[in-house]
Amino acid sequence: MTRAELIQQIKTKRSFLCVGLDTDITKIPTHLLEEEDPIFAFNKAIIAATEDLCVAYKPNIAFYESYGVKGWLSLQKTWEALPKNCFSIADAKRGDIGNTSNMYAQAFFDEQQSGLGFDSLTIAPYMGNDSVTPFLAYKDKWAIVLALTSNQGSLDFQNFKNAEGKQLFEEVIDKVNTWGTPENTMYVVGATRGEGFLKIREHAPDHFLLVPGVGAQGGSLSDVCQYGMNKDCGLLVNSTRGIIYASQGKDFAERAREEAILLQQEMEVELIKAGIID
Amino acid sequence: MTRAELIQQIKTKRSFLCVGLDTDITKIPTHLLEEEDPIFAFNKAIIAATEDLCVAYKPNIAFYESYGVKGWLSLQKTWEALPKNCFSIADAKRGDIGNTSNMYAQAFFDEQQSGLGFDSLTIAPYMGNDSVTPFLAYKDKWAIVLALTSNQGSLDFQNFKNAEGKQLFEEVIDKVNTWGTPENTMYVVGATRGEGFLKIREHAPDHFLLVPGVGAQGGSLSDVCQYGMNKDCGLLVNSTRGIIYASQGKDFAERAREEAILLQQEMEVELIKAGIID
Repeated sequence: MTRAELIQQIKTKRSFLCVGLDTDITKIPTHLLEEEDPIFAFNKAIIAATEDLCVAYKPNIAFYESYGVKGWLSLQKTWEALPKNCFSIADAKRGDIGNTSNMYAQAFFDEQQSGLGFDSLTIAPYMGNDSVTPFLAYKDKWAIVLALTSNQGSLDFQNFKNAEGKQLFEEVIDKVNTWGTPENTMYVVGATRGEGFLKIREHAPDHFLLVPGVGAQGGSLSDVCQYGMNKDCGLLVNSTRGIIYASQGKDFAERAREEAILLQQEMEVELIKAGIID
Repeated sequence: MTRAELIQQIKTKRSFLCVGLDTDITKIPTHLLEEEDPIFAFNKAIIAATEDLCVAYKPNIAFYESYGVKGWLSLQKTWEALPKNCFSIADAKRGDIGNTSNMYAQAFFDEQQSGLGFDSLTIAPYMGNDSVTPFLAYKDKWAIVLALTSNQGSLDFQNFKNAEGKQLFEEVIDKVNTWGTPENTMYVVGATRGEGFLKIREHAPDHFLLVPGVGAQGGSLSDVCQYGMNKDCGLLVNSTRGIIYASQGKDFAERAREEAILLQQEMEVELIKAGIID
């Protein structure tokens, strides 16, 4: 999916919601455990209940990999079930030396070889240039590079400062900006960072940001929009637990839809306020 | 495998060789392409030809993941074929927020759940504490954390310096040292770093180091030993392409064995020189 197509989806759906598909078999409704593939059955119902309200889906690959071959089959089926008008994100935090990153690119982008053709992949930047650039060689595919994350340990290294006071996450953005463009690169910025978005926007005014951490992790959507939105929206705000685990009963899909509607409505207000839609 | 068991293997086999199983279907002998699972057939032959000469095997997960479900099946079979007296390394460079890293730990350590029970996993440290510590909760399992890698882009961020001249990779080692111990943590240090090992050993005198980059990537084994060996050896030196692709003919396994013997003999000399074996 191109940047222009993504922006069009945001305007059409009046939403910049990304639904996280971090499907944990210990948290899904127990009646689904009778299904042949409970994880896929859950995802299918969640997708059907939310696809008109969100512009992106983001399965975290760890949740599938933790079941080995069987989990990889659930991921395969989930990818096939994703609506083609939604931006798909393989949240995998991959990154290795050049020829190996190229293999990861095949794993997630090259449908003919691997069976998976995600639009984008999240990437850990620690290994530098050749760990990131193989993903940028694919037309209309995206590298979503970790910058400033929302987790408890995020500041252990991400705010490591040089003599001029520049922090590692700023160095990451500045260097990655020289490898890719806002047409094929995004950054991960945690919603718990509030005013931290101002600094991010100094370095990446035009890029889309993938923002986890709204809801269960405590981030505020209005803060994210106040400090992080740009003229094209420039945000994909992810919610996982608040939506997909809204209920553990038979009404889980309806309840997920209700929670997604609440977020979509908040987002619509923000998009109108910013003059992006009428 | 415990640290004491690993050291015992090194002494018994007179070797600290790790064989990388980065099996690329475009590089294996063409006669294997007739096999039902060519990648596994190749790995099985390589393992049989080298298992008395090395103390560790390291499949790079990208090479398997790039074939989706089918690749994951090859990985599963390869893991089952690894000799139990060899240290097994899932070279996966994983790392995510705490609950997700925990899923990756299940993926690679929890044989009952995922089918895989590797001894260790390589980890990218960018996300900090909670991305690393879930792997340390498993008894006799290891986190092998990226410190100073051997690839072209490695210095883009790993040598980012603070006001006191401390580099990011030093900060990584110092912090990770407070989360784990030399009994459950190793560091990845590229063989192309030569004297860089002196600085690594200032921060991690007792830890084992996993050292890729000898051979095809240009690192020298004698430099690595001169600057990196400690009283327990403290090194697992990986070779991949120089061994597994020594020949693309029907003699690939014999030729792999010959190359592994050359490295084992060099290693034996180094172990004797250091007084670790007689």
